[in-house]
Amino acid sequence: MHIRQPFNSRNRLNFSGGPGVLSDCVLKETQDAIMGVPGVGLSVLGISHRSEWFADVVHEAESNIRSLLSLPADYHVLFLQGGATQQFVMVPMALAPADKAPPEYLETGYWSAKSIVEARRVAPIRVIWSGHDAGYRCLPSDAELSYSQDAAYLHYVSNETVEGLQFSRVLGREDVTRVCDMSSDFLSRPCEAQRFALIYAHAQKNIGPAGVTIVCVRDEIVRQAPHDLPSCLDYRTQAQAHSIYNTPPVFAIYVVLLVTRWLLRDIGGLAQMDRFNRAKAAQLYACLDGSGGFYRARTAGADRSLMNVVFNLPTTELEHVFLQEAAHAGFSGLEGHRAIGGLRASLYNALTPDAVGELCGFMVDFQTRHSH
Amino acid sequence: MHIRQPFNSRNRLNFSGGPGVLSDCVLKETQDAIMGVPGVGLSVLGISHRSEWFADVVHEAESNIRSLLSLPADYHVLFLQGGATQQFVMVPMALAPADKAPPEYLETGYWSAKSIVEARRVAPIRVIWSGHDAGYRCLPSDAELSYSQDAAYLHYVSNETVEGLQFSRVLGREDVTRVCDMSSDFLSRPCEAQRFALIYAHAQKNIGPAGVTIVCVRDEIVRQAPHDLPSCLDYRTQAQAHSIYNTPPVFAIYVVLLVTRWLLRDIGGLAQMDRFNRAKAAQLYACLDGSGGFYRARTAGADRSLMNVVFNLPTTELEHVFLQEAAHAGFSGLEGHRAIGGLRASLYNALTPDAVGELCGFMVDFQTRHSH
Repeated sequence: MHIRQPFNSRNRLNFSGGPGVLSDCVLKETQDAIMGVPGVGLSVLGISHRSEWFADVVHEAESNIRSLLSLPADYHVLFLQGGATQQFVMVPMALAPADKAPPEYLETGYWSAKSIVEARRVAPIRVIWSGHDAGYRCLPSDAELSYSQDAAYLHYVSNETVEGLQFSRVLGREDVTRVCDMSSDFLSRPCEAQRFALIYAHAQKNIGPAGVTIVCVRDEIVRQAPHDLPSCLDYRTQAQAHSIYNTPPVFAIYVVLLVTRWLLRDIGGLAQMDRFNRAKAAQLYACLDGSGGFYRARTAGADRSLMNVVFNLPTTELEHVFLQEAAHAGFSGLEGHRAIGGLRASLYNALTPDAVGELCGFMVDFQTRHSH
Repeated sequence: MHIRQPFNSRNRLNFSGGPGVLSDCVLKETQDAIMGVPGVGLSVLGISHRSEWFADVVHEAESNIRSLLSLPADYHVLFLQGGATQQFVMVPMALAPADKAPPEYLETGYWSAKSIVEARRVAPIRVIWSGHDAGYRCLPSDAELSYSQDAAYLHYVSNETVEGLQFSRVLGREDVTRVCDMSSDFLSRPCEAQRFALIYAHAQKNIGPAGVTIVCVRDEIVRQAPHDLPSCLDYRTQAQAHSIYNTPPVFAIYVVLLVTRWLLRDIGGLAQMDRFNRAKAAQLYACLDGSGGFYRARTAGADRSLMNVVFNLPTTELEHVFLQEAAHAGFSGLEGHRAIGGLRASLYNALTPDAVGELCGFMVDFQTRHSH
């Protein structure tokens, strides 16, 4: 009979694109709270969202995110539902009034393409750059981008999870409202948050379980939003209610709190998190680049994502064998996104440098055994 | 130093209006899954929503709900986000086309009033009965209700959590689309589900943690819905994707699965659950009615909710003392909804008859000590 490894070992080698790995200490604290939250004694699943305890949870999670991002006081930090997909709609509903020039969107991969489809159901928008025809292999240079001064806003995705492309600079004009979907790299590095009017990120990559989406939005944007929106799609309603307009996803927000504590206390902030993440990605890309073409990274140069390392083997058959052997060795989540296939190792915050080292070791060994 | 009671004891006496109590065995299984889902080994918080395991979770949860409700095959069972509040908007978006007569709404309490406000942002609607001016003290009799044959649909709330009012019959005409918000009594009793075109219920009363909403909807309704809705608000998109259009709240859906297993296996189905729930409510209402007016139930007769027992004491000062002493004795969640004050004991599925017995014992003792 197969001897099951300790659970922590399985979690430690989880390279899933999302929902992703969380740190052992966060999982341990979460586990404790299922039976009884320390100091309260009730299960985190059965505490009223109107309790003082939960108001404190929201307040501390918000305050930790403010602190991690050095967010100015005129930003709201909201905890919403519906994922980034719902933000694809809420953003144009709030920020694209009919009397303004259309917002401008960048189409840099699978997720920004989705954001464009959804936004178009709400308002006319303008796509100012698309990597679609080139198969989303790289990101635009500054020379390729021309922004309108009168656009309602600029929208882009900071990290394309599927293709493994990440911007390492802030795009757009300082005099145009800047909106960014940071779902897959939020709180993975410092991001000059004060240069964005609105940042959104679902939790299930770096900051918690699926089921909650963080929105950092400047108060000015909230105040200018239309007044006739359904409450569940209205930043104003949510901001006025401090994210407790209707019952919020209490559990998911509590885990986000634990993750932000871990980032502040155990990691020491986003600059340090960034150093860890850069080292992890550098090690894995070096392993790919040093394989003499056996492993082929999908992306090159400065566009390479630190979060999602997407690569191929010489044949799809060999990729299949790779996944099987990797699973047998305890690794999981290495299959590429169904939209493009191949392989993907996601190196979110909680994935340890040791785990990357083990993966590199496995890959070198696999190559030795399978290259002829 | 105060000696903390075992966690289970605190959860056992949780009379919260929601998020509500879950059974000990569900909590235990949930706790195990935080570190590693049995048979998978990965934390439930870090497993891909595209995994076979999660497809099985959704499939089994859906199938259990079908079985519990004897739901015909032409219904979809969906797991969505945004709570009942989002359904307040999704329902008129899907079911109130401009070329039909307005949908008809009943205003029977706090939550149906909210549903009306939100629906009006989307479409013109008609309120055919309102208990507002009478302070939502009772529900309408059949004689008070007159339904139009050509209404787009009828919408009502089966149990008003705040006021403690519950319908014990199905309303409306068989030839008009019937929509019901069953958020606070879903899966607490048999409900003749096949007579409803659409039932929705957030999970955090009887069926799981906050963060997921169940929708049972007839396929005909989905097929007739408009084609230009944003994906996150579109039943069609969600039905076609089997609730995995974008990342769903994996954890919350997993707990719903555990609760449905518990209902089927430990409780033995909804008829049995209903017997337990009736016995619990009967015991507590008898305690109120037998107190010689010291405890005054807010509602009377057939309109009384089996889920939420709302009551008052002779003075608000005494209510305050009651809450303090109850908390000291280990009870929690007994304060009334902030909209109306007073006291409320919620007797959701997982609250045990023993817990109700203990509360009645405490109440008799409290009355003895505080009535002069």
